[in-house]
Amino acid sequence: MTLLEQSLRRRSVRQYSGREVTDELLSSLLEAASHTQTMGNLQLYSVIITRDKAMKQALSPLHFDQPMVIGAPVVLTVCADYNRTTRWCEERKAEPGYDNFLSFLNAAIDALLFTQTFCCLAEEAGLGLCYLGTTVYQPEKIIETLRLPRLVMPLATLTLGWPAEEPPVSDRLPLSAFVHREAYRDYTPSLIDSLYAQKEALPENKHFVELNQKETLAQVFTDIRYTRRDNEQMSEGFLKALRRQGFL
Amino acid sequence: MTLLEQSLRRRSVRQYSGREVTDELLSSLLEAASHTQTMGNLQLYSVIITRDKAMKQALSPLHFDQPMVIGAPVVLTVCADYNRTTRWCEERKAEPGYDNFLSFLNAAIDALLFTQTFCCLAEEAGLGLCYLGTTVYQPEKIIETLRLPRLVMPLATLTLGWPAEEPPVSDRLPLSAFVHREAYRDYTPSLIDSLYAQKEALPENKHFVELNQKETLAQVFTDIRYTRRDNEQMSEGFLKALRRQGFL
Repeated sequence: MTLLEQSLRRRSVRQYSGREVTDELLSSLLEAASHTQTMGNLQLYSVIITRDKAMKQALSPLHFDQPMVIGAPVVLTVCADYNRTTRWCEERKAEPGYDNFLSFLNAAIDALLFTQTFCCLAEEAGLGLCYLGTTVYQPEKIIETLRLPRLVMPLATLTLGWPAEEPPVSDRLPLSAFVHREAYRDYTPSLIDSLYAQKEALPENKHFVELNQKETLAQVFTDIRYTRRDNEQMSEGFLKALRRQGFL
Repeated sequence: MTLLEQSLRRRSVRQYSGREVTDELLSSLLEAASHTQTMGNLQLYSVIITRDKAMKQALSPLHFDQPMVIGAPVVLTVCADYNRTTRWCEERKAEPGYDNFLSFLNAAIDALLFTQTFCCLAEEAGLGLCYLGTTVYQPEKIIETLRLPRLVMPLATLTLGWPAEEPPVSDRLPLSAFVHREAYRDYTPSLIDSLYAQKEALPENKHFVELNQKETLAQVFTDIRYTRRDNEQMSEGFLKALRRQGFL
């Protein structure tokens, strides 16, 4: 199967079989992913591999007790990392200047591009995975648990294992919803209607609205899943962690 | 060729043949990439396709006149985008709360994961590309040129075309440089020495040090390529653009 075919069938996998994910396989995937483009060839990221049960139990509440953290044979936490490069500079009579926001951003870009190549590679190998966006919600506690030093910020968590379920493929917006030619053309109300019509008409989304006793699908997002209050609180938490780690 | 084999041979391509990149091919790659995992299925990104020569000329200085911008048949600018979702909420009696830093971060993650799936897909199709990290260096001017509205931030630029060169594969640090087990173990001076020995011994890197009249390779990064002064200035510029776009 080509990556194109694989991508069209892509879905998150949250239930894993008891089959082991060997160190050998994991290493070969991480090594191949490390050929992803990176700023100045510096590879501004680190990966923490969690296999230990006690460590999974410590991470689990930091991801709102999503059962994949304990249920997966392997959990990976990918971090933006300017610590290693800074240490290298200090050992080589060079004065590093990477304790600032742009350097966080550069390292975050490296970390996320690496993460996604890894995801594509893991899925090609037949593994199933789930990307946990919760990593950026409570970074300070993850920093403590994984003992991340200054200039290292956790960004992405993957739960990984051999699939024990075959979930359906999620819906996607049409190409015209996110592609612009030459310049951004903003969205009119009628364009919004046509771009979101299919998503809103899906039985599972209609069910989702009913279940949450809301009037529209958008309200499920604004009132329950991603509320202003949570976003503002977690913004403060992330910025505080950025300062603590020396990036702000 | 599998993605694993492709990844091990991966290199950036900066010179492109005159052969056209058809809209049909580009659309099929963008559509497949849109199946990448995304926060709450919201697809918090937009892509601006630049084919117009005048637009390339306008973008070129914003990427420090790297010749790929004008030389490539297609330039893509991938943006973190909470504007479309916000418009949708407004049309659906839902009160969006996405004008904050966490929402920028969530959209940036979506945009970068999407970008990297696209890169893997484009390379599988035989295209060559170069990722321009300069997108985050002068975002305000890119925002103006591409007319990006509030809650849209440019993050990644790709120059794309059929390869007219076969550059060598870049060196990478050993796996043990960026993989940690269970918790982060910080780097001792002797570990730094062993992890960077191969990189520092490469003839091209030794040449690079001589060319720049420096004592160590690390000094080329700290004193010339990524200096404290530039990083601090560009941090201010990026944060200013984040405020302008309503994310801070």
